[in-house]
Amino acid sequence: MRILIVGTGGVGAAAAAIAQRRAFFSHMVLADVDRERAQAVVERLGEPDRFSAAQVDASDQAALVALMRESRADAVLNACDPRFNEPIFFAAQEAGPTYLDMAMTLSQRHPEQPFERTGVMLGDVQFEASQAWEEKGQLALCGIGVEPGLSDVFARYAQDHLFSAIDEVGIRDGADLEVEGYEFAPTFSIWTTIEECLNPPLIWERERGWFTTAPFSEPEVFEFPEGIGAIECVNVEHEEVALVPRWVDCKRVTFKYGLGQEFIDVLKTLHKLGLDSTDPVTVRGVQVSPRDVVAAALPNPATLGDKMRGRTCAGTYVTGTGKDGRPRRTYLYHVADNETTMREYGSQAVVWQTAINPVIALELIAAGTWSGAGVLGPEALDPVPFLDLLNDYGSPWRMEERA
Amino acid sequence: MRILIVGTGGVGAAAAAIAQRRAFFSHMVLADVDRERAQAVVERLGEPDRFSAAQVDASDQAALVALMRESRADAVLNACDPRFNEPIFFAAQEAGPTYLDMAMTLSQRHPEQPFERTGVMLGDVQFEASQAWEEKGQLALCGIGVEPGLSDVFARYAQDHLFSAIDEVGIRDGADLEVEGYEFAPTFSIWTTIEECLNPPLIWERERGWFTTAPFSEPEVFEFPEGIGAIECVNVEHEEVALVPRWVDCKRVTFKYGLGQEFIDVLKTLHKLGLDSTDPVTVRGVQVSPRDVVAAALPNPATLGDKMRGRTCAGTYVTGTGKDGRPRRTYLYHVADNETTMREYGSQAVVWQTAINPVIALELIAAGTWSGAGVLGPEALDPVPFLDLLNDYGSPWRMEERA
Repeated sequence: MRILIVGTGGVGAAAAAIAQRRAFFSHMVLADVDRERAQAVVERLGEPDRFSAAQVDASDQAALVALMRESRADAVLNACDPRFNEPIFFAAQEAGPTYLDMAMTLSQRHPEQPFERTGVMLGDVQFEASQAWEEKGQLALCGIGVEPGLSDVFARYAQDHLFSAIDEVGIRDGADLEVEGYEFAPTFSIWTTIEECLNPPLIWERERGWFTTAPFSEPEVFEFPEGIGAIECVNVEHEEVALVPRWVDCKRVTFKYGLGQEFIDVLKTLHKLGLDSTDPVTVRGVQVSPRDVVAAALPNPATLGDKMRGRTCAGTYVTGTGKDGRPRRTYLYHVADNETTMREYGSQAVVWQTAINPVIALELIAAGTWSGAGVLGPEALDPVPFLDLLNDYGSPWRMEERA
Repeated sequence: MRILIVGTGGVGAAAAAIAQRRAFFSHMVLADVDRERAQAVVERLGEPDRFSAAQVDASDQAALVALMRESRADAVLNACDPRFNEPIFFAAQEAGPTYLDMAMTLSQRHPEQPFERTGVMLGDVQFEASQAWEEKGQLALCGIGVEPGLSDVFARYAQDHLFSAIDEVGIRDGADLEVEGYEFAPTFSIWTTIEECLNPPLIWERERGWFTTAPFSEPEVFEFPEGIGAIECVNVEHEEVALVPRWVDCKRVTFKYGLGQEFIDVLKTLHKLGLDSTDPVTVRGVQVSPRDVVAAALPNPATLGDKMRGRTCAGTYVTGTGKDGRPRRTYLYHVADNETTMREYGSQAVVWQTAINPVIALELIAAGTWSGAGVLGPEALDPVPFLDLLNDYGSPWRMEERA
């Protein structure tokens, strides 16, 4: 298999480092708008026969098509901000490789009732193209990071192997990560965090279908395992809510993020001041988007690994009736410890936990274990080989029964 | 008298409108980096014989000297951000007119102990030049807005006419202004508010001299008069603390600003995220200062007058021993009601309250009532004619005895 990764930020670089230990691919091209950044990743990998660098503007669909053809990619992994999903996804549709991403095309709020009804939903643009992919026998595996990604695999596993009937699939994400030496330093892209936390959160219910609420709704204290402890979680717009109901039979799907009160306050203040906006403002004759400036003023989370301490937990809390007919509440989860990911891969925990999942998916696709056509979420495919391979990669998943 | 105003933002434009009703000057040139903005102010005034527009870059000292000479200005009023104080002040020193400003040159924090010791203080750069001005018999009247300005006049009045001995001169500023239709809309330049609120607050004590504390120190609930009510005030860096001890005999000088908890939280968050910084960051190849972006993302306070409601109060709380030998606590203050300032001058209250004071000073200078040489604060001059003229302008000051 020949792989093209578009975007060599934290996640793209970590995916390459994780894949390097596996034999399932013959060559990987690492492309970035900044050729030197891609080249630096290739040099760090130190295996010039298997890895090469390229330059591409991820907003330029024609350039992407040319690069996909030139690199003879069997699969392309989109490791860019979701802003670039459309050009990369449609370039893949044109050029032919299997397409993978870790977030779906962005939503647009309902013009009149943004906090009640959906407008354009996460992934809508991609799902609309599904039939065209299906007709070509081409696979777009969307949302195959950790969340969405592993969380969706957990939901499918719960349906297939743990539950006879599911009430709610509730993704719950929390961490006890701290960054030394900074008063405030997000451990994940602040641009994306603002996008997902300030957009109207998406909820699905069998009777109502998809609907939205005001940001930070339904606060809930969730107990995270392995000593991370209790964290205040709130509803957040996330792909799982758009994906899970399409393939998993349940009554309700939610996503709650353990932001903690300080982060919620920061996001509310950014919104109050208009600093979450992506619409450019004019500053001394120059046009910039306030959200880009917020991102630029904060340290790049991918560079903070050696100052971070703690663990991040991604998981799926499933409630309903077990295979034995009795009530069941199970949290399926995966914990990444920053100390381990830094020592073994030089990547910080959140970035690394995102990056391992598309590599596993690529390995399953290379082996023919996972295959399909059209635009699919991770829960459309058999979860068992994925979860087995995650253990095989030395980063086991776990589950915890709750009373 | 011929006057040059540099800067036709809210305060410069309001000063021109206030001066227009008075006969003490023959011509006023309104200069701005944006000639159209200056021209628009002149057109609104509708008196082309007395007012004319000019273009000047307030960072270009040579251009300022040329404009001062060309406009044959007897007095130049600096109505720009204090960032431009140095070029305008030194241009005036070179060209010869009387100079007035409403804020002094900026401070630089102590490199090792920023929250204990002063570094470069507000106005230091200007006071260092005082002897040169004195030798030329030229007057620089600094800090003659409302705060600093009227607040300093109040301190001198208290010394001359109310107290036999002063313990503390405490400037206290508070408002009940609200802006309709905005979740958050500062009523004064956010750039300057960030500067003064996040710099280490300055305090002066007779035994210790000038020293600094951490931002937002010594919170105190101060009761503002005329129904504005109780507001949480905190120490803020302000010129009065640098000015008052030079001319008024007292034991302590402080400045506390009634920011209120929401505004304090916003400022703390901006600081936490590095968005208060004036150091440029690179955003998609463009250099911008985060603080400029914060200002650009918020509505321009000078344009909010018709959506504002409420009053702003500036004043000086003096404690000590009265002329009768008994303990005395007196708050000398001035209230501007947005409804009145909008109706009568088309200026919002905070801007208008700042702008009226340099106009009064210019009238006293034109009449020869106020005169002097060197770099002086408002408390260096006789407060009575100033306070009388403030009443004569139809905007009386008041005082309130406290138990």
